Amino acid sequence: MIITGADVHVTGTGRNYVTLVVHTDEGIVGLGDATVNGRELAVASYLRDHLVPLLIGRDAFATEDTWQYLYRGAYWRRGPITMAAIAAVDVALWDIKAKAAEMPLYQLLGGASRNRLRAYGHAQGRDAEELLRSVRQRMDEGFTAVRVQVGVPGLEKSYGVVSDPGASSAYEPAQGFQRPDEELWDTERYLLHIPSVFAAVREHVGDDVALLHDVHHRLTPTEATRLARSLEPYHPFWIEDPTPAENAKLFRQLRQSTTAPIAIGEVFNTIWDYGPLLEERLIDYARSAVTHAGGLTAMKKLLDYAGVYNVRSGIHGPSDISPVGFAAALHLDTAIHNFGIQEYMGYPERVFELFSVGHFFQDGHLHVSDAPGLGVEFDVAAAEESEYRAAYLPVARLVDGTMHDW
Amino acid sequence: MIITGADVHVTGTGRNYVTLVVHTDEGIVGLGDATVNGRELAVASYLRDHLVPLLIGRDAFATEDTWQYLYRGAYWRRGPITMAAIAAVDVALWDIKAKAAEMPLYQLLGGASRNRLRAYGHAQGRDAEELLRSVRQRMDEGFTAVRVQVGVPGLEKSYGVVSDPGASSAYEPAQGFQRPDEELWDTERYLLHIPSVFAAVREHVGDDVALLHDVHHRLTPTEATRLARSLEPYHPFWIEDPTPAENAKLFRQLRQSTTAPIAIGEVFNTIWDYGPLLEERLIDYARSAVTHAGGLTAMKKLLDYAGVYNVRSGIHGPSDISPVGFAAALHLDTAIHNFGIQEYMGYPERVFELFSVGHFFQDGHLHVSDAPGLGVEFDVAAAEESEYRAAYLPVARLVDGTMHDW
Amino acid sequence: MIITGADVHVTGTGRNYVTLVVHTDEGIVGLGDATVNGRELAVASYLRDHLVPLLIGRDAFATEDTWQYLYRGAYWRRGPITMAAIAAVDVALWDIKAKAAEMPLYQLLGGASRNRLRAYGHAQGRDAEELLRSVRQRMDEGFTAVRVQVGVPGLEKSYGVVSDPGASSAYEPAQGFQRPDEELWDTERYLLHIPSVFAAVREHVGDDVALLHDVHHRLTPTEATRLARSLEPYHPFWIEDPTPAENAKLFRQLRQSTTAPIAIGEVFNTIWDYGPLLEERLIDYARSAVTHAGGLTAMKKLLDYAGVYNVRSGIHGPSDISPVGFAAALHLDTAIHNFGIQEYMGYPERVFELFSVGHFFQDGHLHVSDAPGLGVEFDVAAAEESEYRAAYLPVARLVDGTMHDW
Amino acid sequence: MIITGADVHVTGTGRNYVTLVVHTDEGIVGLGDATVNGRELAVASYLRDHLVPLLIGRDAFATEDTWQYLYRGAYWRRGPITMAAIAAVDVALWDIKAKAAEMPLYQLLGGASRNRLRAYGHAQGRDAEELLRSVRQRMDEGFTAVRVQVGVPGLEKSYGVVSDPGASSAYEPAQGFQRPDEELWDTERYLLHIPSVFAAVREHVGDDVALLHDVHHRLTPTEATRLARSLEPYHPFWIEDPTPAENAKLFRQLRQSTTAPIAIGEVFNTIWDYGPLLEERLIDYARSAVTHAGGLTAMKKLLDYAGVYNVRSGIHGPSDISPVGFAAALHLDTAIHNFGIQEYMGYPERVFELFSVGHFFQDGHLHVSDAPGLGVEFDVAAAEESEYRAAYLPVARLVDGTMHDW
Repeated sequence: MIITGADVHVTGTGRNYVTLVVHTDEGIVGLGDATVNGRELAVASYLRDHLVPLLIGRDAFATEDTWQYLYRGAYWRRGPITMAAIAAVDVALWDIKAKAAEMPLYQLLGGASRNRLRAYGHAQGRDAEELLRSVRQRMDEGFTAVRVQVGVPGLEKSYGVVSDPGASSAYEPAQGFQRPDEELWDTERYLLHIPSVFAAVREHVGDDVALLHDVHHRLTPTEATRLARSLEPYHPFWIEDPTPAENAKLFRQLRQSTTAPIAIGEVFNTIWDYGPLLEERLIDYARSAVTHAGGLTAMKKLLDYAGVYNVRSGIHGPSDISPVGFAAALHLDTAIHNFGIQEYMGYPERVFELFSVGHFFQDGHLHVSDAPGLGVEFDVAAAEESEYRAAYLPVARLVDGTMHDW
Repeated sequence: MIITGADVHVTGTGRNYVTLVVHTDEGIVGLGDATVNGRELAVASYLRDHLVPLLIGRDAFATEDTWQYLYRGAYWRRGPITMAAIAAVDVALWDIKAKAAEMPLYQLLGGASRNRLRAYGHAQGRDAEELLRSVRQRMDEGFTAVRVQVGVPGLEKSYGVVSDPGASSAYEPAQGFQRPDEELWDTERYLLHIPSVFAAVREHVGDDVALLHDVHHRLTPTEATRLARSLEPYHPFWIEDPTPAENAKLFRQLRQSTTAPIAIGEVFNTIWDYGPLLEERLIDYARSAVTHAGGLTAMKKLLDYAGVYNVRSGIHGPSDISPVGFAAALHLDTAIHNFGIQEYMGYPERVFELFSVGHFFQDGHLHVSDAPGLGVEFDVAAAEESEYRAAYLPVARLVDGTMHDW
Repeated sequence: MIITGADVHVTGTGRNYVTLVVHTDEGIVGLGDATVNGRELAVASYLRDHLVPLLIGRDAFATEDTWQYLYRGAYWRRGPITMAAIAAVDVALWDIKAKAAEMPLYQLLGGASRNRLRAYGHAQGRDAEELLRSVRQRMDEGFTAVRVQVGVPGLEKSYGVVSDPGASSAYEPAQGFQRPDEELWDTERYLLHIPSVFAAVREHVGDDVALLHDVHHRLTPTEATRLARSLEPYHPFWIEDPTPAENAKLFRQLRQSTTAPIAIGEVFNTIWDYGPLLEERLIDYARSAVTHAGGLTAMKKLLDYAGVYNVRSGIHGPSDISPVGFAAALHLDTAIHNFGIQEYMGYPERVFELFSVGHFFQDGHLHVSDAPGLGVEFDVAAAEESEYRAAYLPVARLVDGTMHDW
Repeated sequence: MIITGADVHVTGTGRNYVTLVVHTDEGIVGLGDATVNGRELAVASYLRDHLVPLLIGRDAFATEDTWQYLYRGAYWRRGPITMAAIAAVDVALWDIKAKAAEMPLYQLLGGASRNRLRAYGHAQGRDAEELLRSVRQRMDEGFTAVRVQVGVPGLEKSYGVVSDPGASSAYEPAQGFQRPDEELWDTERYLLHIPSVFAAVREHVGDDVALLHDVHHRLTPTEATRLARSLEPYHPFWIEDPTPAENAKLFRQLRQSTTAPIAIGEVFNTIWDYGPLLEERLIDYARSAVTHAGGLTAMKKLLDYAGVYNVRSGIHGPSDISPVGFAAALHLDTAIHNFGIQEYMGYPERVFELFSVGHFFQDGHLHVSDAPGLGVEFDVAAAEESEYRAAYLPVARLVDGTMHDW
């Protein structure tokens, strides 16, 4: 089967997505997601101007060779733009191959290793009271695992917390249309506040729900260790992105001093970014996204490799991963042995004007589509009517003005 | 001084370049280079669509804060596109600051640590005889250090060797206008051939010229070690990119078994890519480009860091680094203590229709400009007349069709 | 710009300082601080007799080359005297270069990364009650971070505690005019006492102020670990110099067992003294002084290097760093990304008869000068009238007479 | 026995020395050497202005306590000036104590472990021929171990080689009276030349003489490894200072790839400078000087510690160690178990106008004095007539002007 063309669609329906549509000589069409939140047009250009011309005429089934061709052939490797573009091509080709096989995609990745996928939802509140209501809401929706984020006294905004407490979990942090919103950050206030919130939540909901927390790279390794130890009594499911990970060996300190499970990887885009995190088992969950880390070909290898070190998956799944990228994650989750959990934020309703999906959420679990391929339809006409509106993710500064990790 | 605007120019004059021009309220203009060979439009989009809007109104002198703002503020970090875009902004701001100080840029980076910069040129030949002529030509031009690349019997094309032996050293490998040229590669033929060529060159030119060689990532660590040991009798100045570097600790094998100096870094874009290469001193020369690795702010930190491990600079300098990026490299080379050598391929003449430069090559050395700032002028009118023509770098395959590292 | 001469001034105005004044052929004058408390005349001799003759005729802008010339050219490297002398030259040359550029010095170091610098002050008391009054006094002055030092029952004197509780924070420990005062030290009494004092302070002031504590090298690694863990409930901002640091790897024990942040470096004079402290991230704050650790050229490299390991600055800033060295620290603090906090003890009023400074303290923060250069004026006539009076820092002995670390 | 006073003499008799004379209430006088070549006045000031006042009234026999008092009491520790000053006091006190015991000093350090001390002399030549004559001259003088240094073709001056081939081995490199002489250095020329010279020497003198070589810190670890491997066939006794040692772990590379013995330490001034060199046994000989590394108290500990790792002594002994410091080395050499070899350059005759020594050289060995104490007399009257003339050690630059390690 030969690739005859490919189109890149940059759409906006409250959420910007970059969708790749690959066409073949036999009429089968594959979908890929190349969305990089806040940098959509650069990855669209990478695809349109540099990769799409290379696809025409290639064997649509040669997923491994095409991956290597785009990765090694670029000469300049790695990075969010490059790897998201490759991911889109890779997922689209797997979608095509599975459709040609008339099988749901997970069958080509190893078949079903489980019949449903435990998901965690996002709860949030400007204070503990609001958070408790939000946690309860997620539990009412069936979630058995909830990520809890809460406002910090004295800080106007906090990561993962939106102003409207009644909002669904599908909030969108990229609200800076001219330039990034700037949030203030104060580590000490945060460290003083969080343990009491965890205590309150745990007291309120008991032990039957898993509690996750996302630090979003804002702590030093020492501060992260202090946080992790302070949360141990409430047995968190994981602590996510506790400290910036460019220098992966700095996670050793955390590991020596706490038993709180550690999750990382949403900002990684290759297996190489993990460095000693896997070989030394400095983490418990690998959180890379199919969309950002080179697609299914690369993510299958990454998660198999993680399995060598008894590390499980916890694939990144916010609403800035398009339904295409999310469906790909579910197929992978279904097939691998070392599945851990799947992030599931949900989507604004308007997103489904463009994307029809076969997977669904029920009783706290995601259920993969059993249609051939990914099980996602993309409405090109609706896409063409939708309008991209550039938006930046926020940035964070310390109170003295120092740029900090958002 | 406030940034009032910035323009991105994608030009083609036999060579494609992406040039950023930053304007300020006091009329001082700064230049930056964001060229990523074969991926020019993606980085231009990254700049135009995502970064330029953020620059307007910023303090032009706040180089560190702006670097952090663009790096951390992207959330999705690292990679060739992101870091080249940041590099262009960073170099342009240093150009502005040095012009405001009425000093050549190297003064702001520490002043002059040497009065000229040893350069190495590129020699090549389809066979040893052609190579010898080419080496001699470089020596006649004054070079005291020459990179030697030679055709391998049985392989039609070899990295670094162009068909026309009379060509200047400013050849351009990106000749694939529709898609990448595909070269065949055979490791054993290469390993068998190279030592005899080094022997011939060394016999011919004696010991007075330094010989460098670029493996271009094509060997395993074991093969690279075999090569390095086989070249020891001819005391190479360095062996470049002997094995792919994503898994940096694989360089340990090489280090334990050979005294041949090792150079790496042209495909790296952050200090983090070096991993244990510096801390364990697995290399002798750090070869990142100012253009690709985040600009002067990041490269100064990288090379100072390298100095802690007695590792020297060998900044990447082919003709796909624009004269702007190349000038930035020369200012940094001049200022740092641990300068090693500077790659200098030269440029096609037409490039200078767009760029007027204050630096020059003489007697085997490069001489930095003493004009305020970078010492480069960019002819915007000429730039607008020039036409970008997409071109891909080649790829390599093994004889059985396996994709290989080019 | 050429150096035409340099003068060394040893002054005493309640505080001894060694000030270097460098003159140039264009009339621009630069200032450097070479004060080593209790060893002033040795460093003055190092400068006058050995370095100043080398400066005349040198390029005033060649900061890196001059640094290397004085460091490598000495053959006998490192140590407090050598590195303070080099620091004075280095800071004076940066002062000159920034004045020539008509920019505040921080612009040459990377521009402003923040708009004010959080400072910590010194509080002290012979007992908890006195200490609480002193902490309150610092908070009334605006400090949001306070170093707390307290008398230990049964010991007549304690480090950081002077007899007069009403004293400003600018006390001077070097009170031994004939020979060092000898203080008695008893580790167990100290370890038993401090936690209750921290508890009392924390109860009194709440969580809104950061509390720092300086152990001043007096504990073994095991004792230091015990102390650190006993203070964890009061979340100290840092524990400083918990154990002697000549054998840096001994800090591993501390790191494995406590989450209390660790600060060290005021007795270090080169990047080499940190050994594994940075590479293994055994500390959280690097506390070297610009004055003692080779000046701005060396300190910029050190702090950038620390940043690779997510270690922040906490530059040493007692009143035996002259206003010149202190101003240099503020410019560096302003420019680097990984600023942590700045020590600020204040100065006896008489110091300002000699030094006029452009920086100031307000609302708990230091504000760097925006005048060209360092923003410090030195009154040579007043300096010549002032009289140096030798004074020693105290020493400590155990109760059995054993010399101990003061 | 109480110290009643101490005088510092800075003398010049072709060689500058800093000699400390300590007086006691019982009339016994002790001598110490504090010479730091090229920085004599700074160490004299450190002694006169800061240490001598502390000595008066102290127990002259309390060598350990006084050492700790001066080391820890300085607060600002380590470094060449501080440690040379402490060394002078320490050696003078041991001299006094041994005189009081009416024993040669070595008896107090453990008694005689051998009856003579193998020494190595310095041979040199501008070319191989001159060097061979010089080696032969040393052998004729009885030396069984000779350090060989030779001119490098194309370089005007080389370390350890003086212009006058007929000179005794007691040449003095500090010839820069206004400022340091600047020597050019070219690593590749050196590396290409030395092996052939070793081959020639070995062929000429056979295997009966040990050959040493001093690299004087000029190579990178990789270059040093290349050199060491190239000299292995001539079985050097040691290769000295092959690469700068501030970052001691960089010696690992050398160790993995060569069996040539490694010596280092003349620029170290404390046990801490050795870092992993001893614990990982990266060296074979510890070369610190009694004069520079804190005196006998510190050196005895250092060499005992070295013995734990089967590392031997090779105490630094050029003519800028005064006869006092040299005598101290011989007493230590005599007493310790793990003696390796003693450097012996000899002295200009005029030196003995000031110093009368009881030790002597015969048949390639040094013989320690058996008089009480060090066995050195210092002629104060002659000293006062002698005139100090400041002189700098040379510096080295690469041909492009880069400062290099001399």
